[in-house]
Amino acid sequence: MVASGEWIAADWIAVYWGPTHMRAWAVGPEGRVLAEVESEAGTLSLTPDRFEPALLDCVLDWLDLTRVTDVFVCGMAGARQGWAETPYVTVPAPPRGGLPLVEPAVADDGISVHILPGMRQDDPPDVMRGEETLMAGLIAREPDFDGVVCLPGTHTKWVHISAGEVVSFATFMTGEVFGLLSTSSVLHYTMDEGGWSEPDFDAAVEESLSFPEQVARKLFGIRAEALLRGLSAAASRARLSGLLVGLEIAASKPYWLGRDIVLVGESPLAGAYARALGLSGLTPRRDDPTDLVIAGLDAARKDLIAARGRGEAG
Amino acid sequence: MVASGEWIAADWIAVYWGPTHMRAWAVGPEGRVLAEVESEAGTLSLTPDRFEPALLDCVLDWLDLTRVTDVFVCGMAGARQGWAETPYVTVPAPPRGGLPLVEPAVADDGISVHILPGMRQDDPPDVMRGEETLMAGLIAREPDFDGVVCLPGTHTKWVHISAGEVVSFATFMTGEVFGLLSTSSVLHYTMDEGGWSEPDFDAAVEESLSFPEQVARKLFGIRAEALLRGLSAAASRARLSGLLVGLEIAASKPYWLGRDIVLVGESPLAGAYARALGLSGLTPRRDDPTDLVIAGLDAARKDLIAARGRGEAG
Repeated sequence: MVASGEWIAADWIAVYWGPTHMRAWAVGPEGRVLAEVESEAGTLSLTPDRFEPALLDCVLDWLDLTRVTDVFVCGMAGARQGWAETPYVTVPAPPRGGLPLVEPAVADDGISVHILPGMRQDDPPDVMRGEETLMAGLIAREPDFDGVVCLPGTHTKWVHISAGEVVSFATFMTGEVFGLLSTSSVLHYTMDEGGWSEPDFDAAVEESLSFPEQVARKLFGIRAEALLRGLSAAASRARLSGLLVGLEIAASKPYWLGRDIVLVGESPLAGAYARALGLSGLTPRRDDPTDLVIAGLDAARKDLIAARGRGEAG
Repeated sequence: MVASGEWIAADWIAVYWGPTHMRAWAVGPEGRVLAEVESEAGTLSLTPDRFEPALLDCVLDWLDLTRVTDVFVCGMAGARQGWAETPYVTVPAPPRGGLPLVEPAVADDGISVHILPGMRQDDPPDVMRGEETLMAGLIAREPDFDGVVCLPGTHTKWVHISAGEVVSFATFMTGEVFGLLSTSSVLHYTMDEGGWSEPDFDAAVEESLSFPEQVARKLFGIRAEALLRGLSAAASRARLSGLLVGLEIAASKPYWLGRDIVLVGESPLAGAYARALGLSGLTPRRDDPTDLVIAGLDAARKDLIAARGRGEAG
């Protein structure tokens, strides 16, 4: 893998386009990553006409000018306010569920862009755009996988996979709630210094697992404990995180109970989830989000190539 | 009662000084309110030297220049970052718990300012500044009151009162969490139009009471339901409020179970709490926060007058 800026001829290009960031990979033979780039041109900052220039800014050095390079995109680029709206596949179903990819018109004739569909769940209502492609990657690699996948993030997803299908999923705003409370509520006064304390995180997770409804009271308790007992910023932050992650682990019990668990990511946040799951006696297998997203986009690419071979698609 | 701006000779002046607002009342014979004023000069916007000018801005028209007027103050003016720090009385104890009032030095010799102490609870840690004075007002009016008082607000307090003492209390950040989630999280997209729907509020309260831990998942469910089923802004807001208030009612059950309940305030927020309590089969008595705070400050004033009579205080 080399840094972007050097000329690379990608076989194809993989893109995960999130609300606040975009990541792109130049993929070579046998799915090898030749280069990668990350940009802050997230979908929230772009109007539809700005997606192509934002993409080219990142991937121009990877184009072989003698042919058209396919670019496979998942994530919020397919949302209504994104580049081109793609439908949702309704679960239970395989990711993509046989739906065609959406190909937005582009000005540059050196690229052909294919945006993958998202997934929806009718009851209880839920949606995802992006994570379904990581699930497609997992299923492509392990067709017999049967278990639950946890994808920690601003909006953490829990996804139940069985028989090559996404059976159901659930979204938790835990990361976003933590961000708002730790920076914009009365709790920020005692957390701004940052830091982390594992014993306080562990204790708070255990409290939430035992008495989930008491989280409502314990939030202000962090502030009071800082005022009355000098609870440190590190302990306050870890305690807030533990209360919220613990509440999520309590609520997601129907997902993880009695199932194999894959935890995606190596971030500190993913580490916190691993620790919280460990307190419930669970030892999730870890997996890499980049490997999964590229495998998932590659699966869509191979389907498209097969369809082209049958003369079904451009 | 007359509007401020007209000259009034107050017997004494009552002040509730909160973080974002200050309210003051000119009190006449027999505790009658002669005039009132509200200001946005909350404690968060003031340094210690700005409290006296902010107060005089509001109450100058109420001063009888032939004598010194006593001003009794409760709330965050007694916090460390306030006008002058007052101690906390530790529960269980009567409000003020026999502690002296704190009298900050003032430049204007026409006023004498007395700031009341707050209350603290050691286990679980909690603090209040202001609400204890409403409790003192309730106890002054009804010395035999035995029950729980709910004071809805940005930080809602539940206070257990018995035998003239504050036995224990609990603070919930429900109002602040609602504010942050409805205006600054992904949920704001579908709530910005405002509005309210009682059936959706009721349904959400019932869900939280039955399955409190599931609130963690149901927050994003509001967004998904708006995307997939066109849930209205009014229904979305009411649903978010119902989930959070319901979680608070579930967590405060040790407070209200089997006790008489007084609900303070006539705001829409207090109405939402009344409705949520009603869904648990509870019919709280309603009470007026202005009546209570003036009665509580008046109790402190009478104690001070009695002490002056005994020659104990200035």
